[in-house]
Amino acid sequence: MSNYQELKQTCYEANMELQALSLVIYTFGNVSAVDRARGTFAIKPSGVPYEQLAPEDMVILDFDNNVVEGKLRPSSDTRTHAWLYKNWEEIGGIAHTHATYSVAWAQAQRDIPILGTTHADHLTVDIPCAPPMDEALIAGNYEHNTGRQITDCFASRELDYREVPMVLLGNHGPFTWGGSAAKAVYHSKVLEEVARMAQLTLQINPNAPRLSDALIRKHYERKHGKNAYYGQ
Amino acid sequence: MSNYQELKQTCYEANMELQALSLVIYTFGNVSAVDRARGTFAIKPSGVPYEQLAPEDMVILDFDNNVVEGKLRPSSDTRTHAWLYKNWEEIGGIAHTHATYSVAWAQAQRDIPILGTTHADHLTVDIPCAPPMDEALIAGNYEHNTGRQITDCFASRELDYREVPMVLLGNHGPFTWGGSAAKAVYHSKVLEEVARMAQLTLQINPNAPRLSDALIRKHYERKHGKNAYYGQ
Amino acid sequence: MSNYQELKQTCYEANMELQALSLVIYTFGNVSAVDRARGTFAIKPSGVPYEQLAPEDMVILDFDNNVVEGKLRPSSDTRTHAWLYKNWEEIGGIAHTHATYSVAWAQAQRDIPILGTTHADHLTVDIPCAPPMDEALIAGNYEHNTGRQITDCFASRELDYREVPMVLLGNHGPFTWGGSAAKAVYHSKVLEEVARMAQLTLQINPNAPRLSDALIRKHYERKHGKNAYYGQ
Amino acid sequence: MSNYQELKQTCYEANMELQALSLVIYTFGNVSAVDRARGTFAIKPSGVPYEQLAPEDMVILDFDNNVVEGKLRPSSDTRTHAWLYKNWEEIGGIAHTHATYSVAWAQAQRDIPILGTTHADHLTVDIPCAPPMDEALIAGNYEHNTGRQITDCFASRELDYREVPMVLLGNHGPFTWGGSAAKAVYHSKVLEEVARMAQLTLQINPNAPRLSDALIRKHYERKHGKNAYYGQ
Repeated sequence: MSNYQELKQTCYEANMELQALSLVIYTFGNVSAVDRARGTFAIKPSGVPYEQLAPEDMVILDFDNNVVEGKLRPSSDTRTHAWLYKNWEEIGGIAHTHATYSVAWAQAQRDIPILGTTHADHLTVDIPCAPPMDEALIAGNYEHNTGRQITDCFASRELDYREVPMVLLGNHGPFTWGGSAAKAVYHSKVLEEVARMAQLTLQINPNAPRLSDALIRKHYERKHGKNAYYGQ
Repeated sequence: MSNYQELKQTCYEANMELQALSLVIYTFGNVSAVDRARGTFAIKPSGVPYEQLAPEDMVILDFDNNVVEGKLRPSSDTRTHAWLYKNWEEIGGIAHTHATYSVAWAQAQRDIPILGTTHADHLTVDIPCAPPMDEALIAGNYEHNTGRQITDCFASRELDYREVPMVLLGNHGPFTWGGSAAKAVYHSKVLEEVARMAQLTLQINPNAPRLSDALIRKHYERKHGKNAYYGQ
Repeated sequence: MSNYQELKQTCYEANMELQALSLVIYTFGNVSAVDRARGTFAIKPSGVPYEQLAPEDMVILDFDNNVVEGKLRPSSDTRTHAWLYKNWEEIGGIAHTHATYSVAWAQAQRDIPILGTTHADHLTVDIPCAPPMDEALIAGNYEHNTGRQITDCFASRELDYREVPMVLLGNHGPFTWGGSAAKAVYHSKVLEEVARMAQLTLQINPNAPRLSDALIRKHYERKHGKNAYYGQ
Repeated sequence: MSNYQELKQTCYEANMELQALSLVIYTFGNVSAVDRARGTFAIKPSGVPYEQLAPEDMVILDFDNNVVEGKLRPSSDTRTHAWLYKNWEEIGGIAHTHATYSVAWAQAQRDIPILGTTHADHLTVDIPCAPPMDEALIAGNYEHNTGRQITDCFASRELDYREVPMVLLGNHGPFTWGGSAAKAVYHSKVLEEVARMAQLTLQINPNAPRLSDALIRKHYERKHGKNAYYGQ
């Protein structure tokens, strides 16, 4: 019996949630879940339809992309996950989707401006869109470099991954993360909804202003601040 | 056994209806139901997913925000509800959502123009968008001031809350009300549909004119006037 | 036992189909079915939610709006149906909805241009949008005049209701008809789909040209012409 | 017992999938499946609602449109399928839909530009929109000429049908194909999703640039190249 049964189960459930939330079709997307104590993570196998997935199909790897357990080939995006786990030590799970509105902003190569409190309930800045990868990065270790493109974007913009749990990768789509795989999936859904709201807002009023700093702070702090009073 | 069992049940069912109507995801939104005789209202607890809600989780408060019954923390928007109940004495229920199209108009900071009979079947004026709150209001008693922002908007525009059962709060989203919690939820759904119709209309014809006064009056009166002949 | 049981059943099923096809919410919309031999029609009662409808709730009227059978008040739009049955003798059923995209075009007061073969499979001209009703018509016998507005539009444009089974009424929404109530509902769904396709098309290419006459004729004739070869 | 039972079953299941994927309503659309060894294909009968279809209703024809087996009239688009099977020898199945976003691009008469990796995961060029058919082609053997319009488009643009498994026919809608009927349906769904993403992208940024050649190649090759590493 596997030593990773619980991790696989967690990872499996988070992946299945992607489909239940209509964030993916066919084999699109993937979620991983990390076990920090053992320095390993579980991830969806590559190209398997969600209907056919079972918990035991999840693949276990270390942060250097060595398969620790599993018979199937891991997601083709595995190296991106590994890089993020290695560099951002407080992440518990990562999700990647091709959800429609999130992808549209990524293809448009635009940050999603912070236009309302739905956005500010989750983060205090525009949702960053990292630039598309250049030819050298693509020709190299592509999925590994995808991870670097994300961490480089956060470094150059001085963003903290613990406060900004999502990014758009230009030309590609969204990556989100959080304290757990379930939370990463939650952020994928919130991002998709915020992306849709922002697009509709700008169609009604192309000059819709960003939120005031005061309102951003208020909404973020009441959920995430020291004196947060949202939730139980 | 609680003295508020029926009120809690009413409130619970109205909250669950928000989800059934696809007006909320996760823990977004909240509905309250009032007991005028006792000067109390029931409201959804803060941050609890709809799937996990039970009637006995509803929190009972008076109009000064004192918890009368309930083990959970009430919705973070409770003070907004309390203010509205206190000031608008004929309201039986209040709903707040982050429904996509309603939020888009709120973020665009635009009133929804009255463009068709679907709108006029429910109210005779553009759906008001109250201005975003200024720094002083945000820094103060925020949720209480949210309620004031709504009643101030109605006062300055000389609107009657009994005839206009909905408002958009700039940067935030919709609040709706009615004679009962169920009716408040009904108005949230109608608002979302009218918001969507208006946006699509203006995409087809940016100069689409408002309804004539005669047509507005006709449609409103046949449902709500003295000689109404709609319904049984 | 009613002499109109079959007619009521037909009418009931067509009304329920409106909801199954997501063309209505709450009590919006209505369908009627005619019995030409007896000069009567069945229609949905006014303001009753679809979930609560039963076949025996359908109201039977003659073409002069006299109730022949039924305990409930008929749809507030009944006089529009009666006028159309009286004037257009080959109609077997009529449907009215507030479906979103159809309403958007009606509110935009624009004919839906014939942009593709999906449209031409059903009719050979732009879908007409009758002008909003003027003050005198509204102040008079409103629902009766709604019917006149539709037949006047067809007369002035020299359209044949047997070939053009749908109209948009400016500021209001769609009315559709056909050889049966089921066919009227079918046309409501097709109209909604064509309305959506046309709007999306014009967003991609505001100058998208109308179909050539040759292509319009070909698609319409292969389904509806003397030598039609579509279907069994 | 039919010699084509398996072929009919395959064809039936692929047709039913069109509806399950929300790519068609009513009797719209059709899928065929080929038996190369016998030079025949199975196709949906004309004008039969999906709810009423059964595997034995599928019609078997040869590539010259002669019915080999079946009591029902085959799809009115049969000659288009036959032409494509005859000319493109490695196709195993063909699907035709009136899916909304795909039709919108076809009606707009625009190629769908390659704006993201979702697109590049499936093909390396813009999705071609063949010009609407001219009067002579329409007046002739229409459905046969529809097939020619598609192969002529591929010939003049020097496209390989094995690498580009989809086309939009101007004014009409999408045709897709693949190694099997199921794969053809898969391509219809992917096309619809890519069409929607592209439209949303251009609404956010009308100047959104095409993907770099390097990124196109990378994504296409990792799924379809010699050293593909996507999937099991």
